Amino acid sequence: MFMHNKRLQYTVRVAEPNPALASLLLEQFGGPDGELAAAMRYFTQGLGEDDPGRKDLLLDIATEELSHLEVIGSIVAMLNKGVKSHLSEGAMSEADLYMEINAGGDSHTQSILYGGGPALTNSSGVPWTAAYVDSRGDPTCDLRSNIAAESRAKIVYERLINITDDPGIKDALGFLMTREIAHQKSFEKALYAIEDNFPSGKLPGIERYANMYVNTSQGDGDTQGSWNSGEQWDVVDDVVSAIPMDGGDGLASVKLDKATQQVMAKAAARLISNPSSDPQTGVDLGAGPGAGLITEADMGGAKNIKDAAAMAEAE
Amino acid sequence: MFMHNKRLQYTVRVAEPNPALASLLLEQFGGPDGELAAAMRYFTQGLGEDDPGRKDLLLDIATEELSHLEVIGSIVAMLNKGVKSHLSEGAMSEADLYMEINAGGDSHTQSILYGGGPALTNSSGVPWTAAYVDSRGDPTCDLRSNIAAESRAKIVYERLINITDDPGIKDALGFLMTREIAHQKSFEKALYAIEDNFPSGKLPGIERYANMYVNTSQGDGDTQGSWNSGEQWDVVDDVVSAIPMDGGDGLASVKLDKATQQVMAKAAARLISNPSSDPQTGVDLGAGPGAGLITEADMGGAKNIKDAAAMAEAE
Amino acid sequence: MFMHNKRLQYTVRVAEPNPALASLLLEQFGGPDGELAAAMRYFTQGLGEDDPGRKDLLLDIATEELSHLEVIGSIVAMLNKGVKSHLSEGAMSEADLYMEINAGGDSHTQSILYGGGPALTNSSGVPWTAAYVDSRGDPTCDLRSNIAAESRAKIVYERLINITDDPGIKDALGFLMTREIAHQKSFEKALYAIEDNFPSGKLPGIERYANMYVNTSQGDGDTQGSWNSGEQWDVVDDVVSAIPMDGGDGLASVKLDKATQQVMAKAAARLISNPSSDPQTGVDLGAGPGAGLITEADMGGAKNIKDAAAMAEAE
Amino acid sequence: MFMHNKRLQYTVRVAEPNPALASLLLEQFGGPDGELAAAMRYFTQGLGEDDPGRKDLLLDIATEELSHLEVIGSIVAMLNKGVKSHLSEGAMSEADLYMEINAGGDSHTQSILYGGGPALTNSSGVPWTAAYVDSRGDPTCDLRSNIAAESRAKIVYERLINITDDPGIKDALGFLMTREIAHQKSFEKALYAIEDNFPSGKLPGIERYANMYVNTSQGDGDTQGSWNSGEQWDVVDDVVSAIPMDGGDGLASVKLDKATQQVMAKAAARLISNPSSDPQTGVDLGAGPGAGLITEADMGGAKNIKDAAAMAEAE
Amino acid sequence: MFMHNKRLQYTVRVAEPNPALASLLLEQFGGPDGELAAAMRYFTQGLGEDDPGRKDLLLDIATEELSHLEVIGSIVAMLNKGVKSHLSEGAMSEADLYMEINAGGDSHTQSILYGGGPALTNSSGVPWTAAYVDSRGDPTCDLRSNIAAESRAKIVYERLINITDDPGIKDALGFLMTREIAHQKSFEKALYAIEDNFPSGKLPGIERYANMYVNTSQGDGDTQGSWNSGEQWDVVDDVVSAIPMDGGDGLASVKLDKATQQVMAKAAARLISNPSSDPQTGVDLGAGPGAGLITEADMGGAKNIKDAAAMAEAE
Amino acid sequence: MFMHNKRLQYTVRVAEPNPALASLLLEQFGGPDGELAAAMRYFTQGLGEDDPGRKDLLLDIATEELSHLEVIGSIVAMLNKGVKSHLSEGAMSEADLYMEINAGGDSHTQSILYGGGPALTNSSGVPWTAAYVDSRGDPTCDLRSNIAAESRAKIVYERLINITDDPGIKDALGFLMTREIAHQKSFEKALYAIEDNFPSGKLPGIERYANMYVNTSQGDGDTQGSWNSGEQWDVVDDVVSAIPMDGGDGLASVKLDKATQQVMAKAAARLISNPSSDPQTGVDLGAGPGAGLITEADMGGAKNIKDAAAMAEAE
Repeated sequence: MFMHNKRLQYTVRVAEPNPALASLLLEQFGGPDGELAAAMRYFTQGLGEDDPGRKDLLLDIATEELSHLEVIGSIVAMLNKGVKSHLSEGAMSEADLYMEINAGGDSHTQSILYGGGPALTNSSGVPWTAAYVDSRGDPTCDLRSNIAAESRAKIVYERLINITDDPGIKDALGFLMTREIAHQKSFEKALYAIEDNFPSGKLPGIERYANMYVNTSQGDGDTQGSWNSGEQWDVVDDVVSAIPMDGGDGLASVKLDKATQQVMAKAAARLISNPSSDPQTGVDLGAGPGAGLITEADMGGAKNIKDAAAMAEAE
Repeated sequence: MFMHNKRLQYTVRVAEPNPALASLLLEQFGGPDGELAAAMRYFTQGLGEDDPGRKDLLLDIATEELSHLEVIGSIVAMLNKGVKSHLSEGAMSEADLYMEINAGGDSHTQSILYGGGPALTNSSGVPWTAAYVDSRGDPTCDLRSNIAAESRAKIVYERLINITDDPGIKDALGFLMTREIAHQKSFEKALYAIEDNFPSGKLPGIERYANMYVNTSQGDGDTQGSWNSGEQWDVVDDVVSAIPMDGGDGLASVKLDKATQQVMAKAAARLISNPSSDPQTGVDLGAGPGAGLITEADMGGAKNIKDAAAMAEAE
Repeated sequence: MFMHNKRLQYTVRVAEPNPALASLLLEQFGGPDGELAAAMRYFTQGLGEDDPGRKDLLLDIATEELSHLEVIGSIVAMLNKGVKSHLSEGAMSEADLYMEINAGGDSHTQSILYGGGPALTNSSGVPWTAAYVDSRGDPTCDLRSNIAAESRAKIVYERLINITDDPGIKDALGFLMTREIAHQKSFEKALYAIEDNFPSGKLPGIERYANMYVNTSQGDGDTQGSWNSGEQWDVVDDVVSAIPMDGGDGLASVKLDKATQQVMAKAAARLISNPSSDPQTGVDLGAGPGAGLITEADMGGAKNIKDAAAMAEAE
Repeated sequence: MFMHNKRLQYTVRVAEPNPALASLLLEQFGGPDGELAAAMRYFTQGLGEDDPGRKDLLLDIATEELSHLEVIGSIVAMLNKGVKSHLSEGAMSEADLYMEINAGGDSHTQSILYGGGPALTNSSGVPWTAAYVDSRGDPTCDLRSNIAAESRAKIVYERLINITDDPGIKDALGFLMTREIAHQKSFEKALYAIEDNFPSGKLPGIERYANMYVNTSQGDGDTQGSWNSGEQWDVVDDVVSAIPMDGGDGLASVKLDKATQQVMAKAAARLISNPSSDPQTGVDLGAGPGAGLITEADMGGAKNIKDAAAMAEAE
Repeated sequence: MFMHNKRLQYTVRVAEPNPALASLLLEQFGGPDGELAAAMRYFTQGLGEDDPGRKDLLLDIATEELSHLEVIGSIVAMLNKGVKSHLSEGAMSEADLYMEINAGGDSHTQSILYGGGPALTNSSGVPWTAAYVDSRGDPTCDLRSNIAAESRAKIVYERLINITDDPGIKDALGFLMTREIAHQKSFEKALYAIEDNFPSGKLPGIERYANMYVNTSQGDGDTQGSWNSGEQWDVVDDVVSAIPMDGGDGLASVKLDKATQQVMAKAAARLISNPSSDPQTGVDLGAGPGAGLITEADMGGAKNIKDAAAMAEAE
Repeated sequence: MFMHNKRLQYTVRVAEPNPALASLLLEQFGGPDGELAAAMRYFTQGLGEDDPGRKDLLLDIATEELSHLEVIGSIVAMLNKGVKSHLSEGAMSEADLYMEINAGGDSHTQSILYGGGPALTNSSGVPWTAAYVDSRGDPTCDLRSNIAAESRAKIVYERLINITDDPGIKDALGFLMTREIAHQKSFEKALYAIEDNFPSGKLPGIERYANMYVNTSQGDGDTQGSWNSGEQWDVVDDVVSAIPMDGGDGLASVKLDKATQQVMAKAAARLISNPSSDPQTGVDLGAGPGAGLITEADMGGAKNIKDAAAMAEAE
């Protein structure tokens, strides 16, 4: 069960209201790498977890992330205090309010729709979705996902620090950013405390395909490194000759009963695109005299299609 | 630029149509860890990447994932060949068709809406969304995200292998599953080939907060491991006493100009929830004679609220 | 700041695994009226709230809803314990596993994608979205929204109780359902403790339009009640004669500068749908000999268009 | 069946084009409390309703909301007349058009994607979703939801009035805002005309839990009011001692058959996070010499982590 | 199987970084008519297609659209090169970076969340969704959808050309725009090469209803053209008299067994909105002295409700 | 302004309740080609339209589609009458209700969440989204999109007719299906009544690229037809040699100022993936003794990876 203390995990001191900055900070409130995503990621993993050590770890960090959600949400609420009251009391001229909500980010929506309260959207106003949570119920996957998520949250905090010059906000963001580093360390420990954690799951891979590197993108820029060369890799450079890689015919097939085959044949006959006809089409009916095309010769001195069209129209 | 060869990377041999199984396999076609997600994750990273080695790697694997999308989509198409033609030609009785599309998964939607073509949804019919793609434009984050994504894709293939007894499908899924292992290995190499890859980004963390472990979830089940104990961790067990962690007052504040303060005071006065009144409410107006409640005593022998309600009604 | 105790707010005793039932219960975990929606609704309102009484209330209930999220999620986790381990260990035959995950609801996705962990989706597998949270930053709106949300959560729990015969689950759901009743009572008190809470906001309405009832849906079934008749209502029955209700011309207009008017005229001329032509169309090009139509006479004895088509085809 | 008259319910007179303002007004066209949401909410309830009085009321108001959708959409269309024709005819310089579509809100998307036509998005460009509609098929819930929705729509109109100084738009918005007041009154009448409307549904609550108030959020700021104190409430202040509230063990359990227990044990052994190991981790492999951390002492005179990092880099 | 060559299909020369313009161009990267939508539309159709001609065509164009995705994404990446490195290195003052990311469009999110990499969102930051793909598994539908999609993609490119004055970008967009014209021509050919392509599907329509035009929108502005007048149309002008169009009673009915009828009667009695009561409501409890309304007379000289409210407050 | 008559446009006679069938029919209520999508598509186009003929046409059909929404919603409501009342009154045993809601489709969600009322979701429970509406504010695009949409709606109705044997439902669906044919005819007339309707928009294409066909998908299955061969097409078969098609270098470039170049160089150095190192990775730390791989030789007699793994485990 959860409990709450009204003090924040970290004190929030905001220098002055700024709804546009508030809108940017929402990235860590209701964005994909924000604190709700973190809390829900760990909380739902914790509920499904059977291993006592991991369960404890996941619930500890989930609970702390909720506390971070509170810190970042409190910063947003402080930044919006001005526009919130101005709008609710109609306390400024229409023109001034219009300018206050159009000063950057998506603060127009945060003000008009959410009334300046912290909303669970990202900085573009996209509502938070559980599609951001990539828990799969297997600890060797989930811990890797958590490690990656912590590294992402760290970088987003860093970017926000880089665009904010309010010292109190910078201070709190520095704390939050550092806690992501701490959490990543814990999840790394928990991952490698599973003795055999690669590959995920229980089924082994097939060695031949596990050591194959398929050089599908070719041309200038082909580069070699430990990720695609050296002893451990069988590199396939002549890709076309190698397909299919199982030595079969490279086709897709399914065995159908006779009745279905007959129905399919009927459908095929009904819907065949006759390759030997050259039908009149809607395009033929609709194209005007010039057929909406211009030759490169006709473009003459025009630098681009727009100028060419303008010239043609002027004639 | 992309090119395409009509042979598949791996031959697809399906034993017989099965639209319900097709619906399950969509998880790897249009699901969050499916091949479109993989291809788009690496492709968009590759476009933004400046490092030639990583760019090459990302484009190689992105291109291969598109080819895997083709393999899994071809399996789905084969499994749907029957219902697709039956439905388009109206070739079976209504009752038989109704049963064919209601045999499991969300094949009802795949048949009626998508006509048996492979649709970019997951196995519940949820359309694929780019919200699944967590690229952040920093290689130490993105490579970690890729490693995690490959481990997730591996486990989902493993689960599909575990519920499928069609040998041709099992065979192809085994290939696809193994390729995820290979890709994970490549991404690990690329990550650790960046000399200083932890923490992500450029700003350092604050040591004090990076080594702190906050034991926010307490009670029976508290467990110790390398993730939350030992020399490297300063553990905070008495959490309430420790907040806020910066030694401040733990409150959120913002400096407001006088005019805004006055507007806020006006709003507060207008909207105060008077704590000393005990108002009549909508509930008082709407609650019937029994006020919709039942005492535990009244529940008597009833085992639960539903039986108790049934007994009360019967009286 | 949040803290957590490992005991649940209510003990969870599940009689036996049942992934299909688990899928249904997700409605209260990751569905629109589920516990995450409740917790986030009150938590975000609490962060933005200035009134101390309401802030306290919102944080109290938000925290309790998180604890309910834990209870319902724990039930789901217990119901999935069987399929989770069967799938992760490949411990049953493919056919048995296939049947276990296709037994009802959307448990196929919950098993294959989420590995049996409780996922923040509703019972159809739709990921939770913050679009469910309708907080608007005004207490007279938000408290009404909260009252409505609690009444909805109550009914969904009631329906789940009605379809579940596991006594332990029924017991826990009875507790959770009742707590929604308690919360509704608290929110009603807080709403009516605001002296002047109707209409929401600060701007008054215009009396003439506030007392007007427009009878837009007519015909058999027109009914009268206190909501559309009696002294307080001016009823508009002859709607067509009454529009527009401001006595203007009922048109939409905008003042445009001369240059824009000229551009618009040019666009209009370019794109006019010539009403006096009767052009040949794509339909004319594409319709087969029978033009894909059948007269009612031709349908003859056929009871419906499908039978008629079958008869025609048989001829 | 619906019919339509080409006159609007209220005359729309717009002073001059303004695509940025148009973008803000979309909140009431395709936003969560906009007119489409209102119309669909009442229309779908009306279709499912059996009570003749409510059915009539719901269809009356649904139809009027469609007419409001037309009014607000017409305002948007007028505000976009300029940019729409400028863009379609390429009638201004590229730089001027670029500035016209970047003047505020999300008008850039409304112009480029939707061509200046009124789009069913909110003011951030988020497409309307039926997830906004919270109808539950029970009138005591749905009428409460409708009451809340009307109060929300009222406040959003009020905010738009507060930021708009076009008199014709202000006039039309005043009408629309007032109609929401009228609709709320009707829905209140219909709710309380149901004799026993609280709690929603048919199952009673359990008295003990219905009168309990759990003080989960504690510390400075704890406040009392009729919502959490007084005779009707049993207040739980010592929360930790009170859990679980059913007097059980507060754990989650499920009865498993022997085979499943064995499989679970196997999975647990395979995946145990060994608490007694202290493994080397990816972090150890990836951390550079300074391990990406900085002590508070080292931060010296730097005011924040960014300045400290800059100082360190400069050295 | 797919392969990739590192040269682009069209050379990209960008004059200077501009993250705001990058954000607008995303419309054709991750927007509804963008290149991912195009590629996935044709690719998934191709996988399900049985006709060899159409399959070849769909895979050719799908592959080319992937190459266009690469071109447009490369333009976006170039436009973001500045902000990407400034942000990752913290290389400018906070104020300058804040201004750089707030210069237009939704570049704030593209910078902070996506780090300047090309993200699969539209120009408002809405993540790409497969809901944009309208393939239905029937070629006469899908080819029409493709034709429409190509015409839409053409217009969006045209608008982008109209707001961009970077010559290299204009050049590349001109190429991409023209390719949509070419693709539309191919799809038109393929549609009309199906001999009997209207109406879609196999079932014929009923002649009487296929030639009926229902004039549901009436009043000034009723217009005639070949789409609603002339020999081929039976026009219904007196709509109310004509409903229902099948000559039945226009009601919805279902046959219910006796037990269900009894349950329904019980539910109806329990939930009846008593039309003869005039209940006190929540509105009555909550309305203040003036009931939040103002008469038009009272508005006096005020031009609108906001001014009237301000005057009333001032008194 | 809209008005409503309580008679339906077509009488609805349902033979017996069937919530699973109701769930399938939702495809045409809240699905992508359903009646809400149709109504909103034409209504929003109509609001933005300046041409009087098209405006009238769009409003006529939009209004009729709303009436179709009512017809299909009424069928759904009738099919759900049983389960709705059974659930609201708790009138059947838990086991019977559980079976009633699990009989097919996604009726479990329709019953538990929506209470049997018609919900604006598709047949998989995905909420309707305005992302389905592809209006672009240009009539030559929008009419093509409408034509395609009508053809899609026709086919979905056809499929529903093919799986339904309730004669009353079949009858009503036949009417609705035929009306889509009529609407397509009207939109075709309106499109071709625009004299010069191809290509869409005003800017011409570049002839050279408009007539080029790029044969990107090669191998067995390459097919010729009027869409990719004949006089009007310049076919590019040797694709690799032809890129880039503008004769440039096929690279993406941007001109950067010196300061930015220096920052980029710094970032590149910091983040280089060193191609000459062969680092130890997380995989090396985590792979167990067998490294999770199995050779094809070791697979021996096993038919697939799962059997091989089982054999290995048994040893």
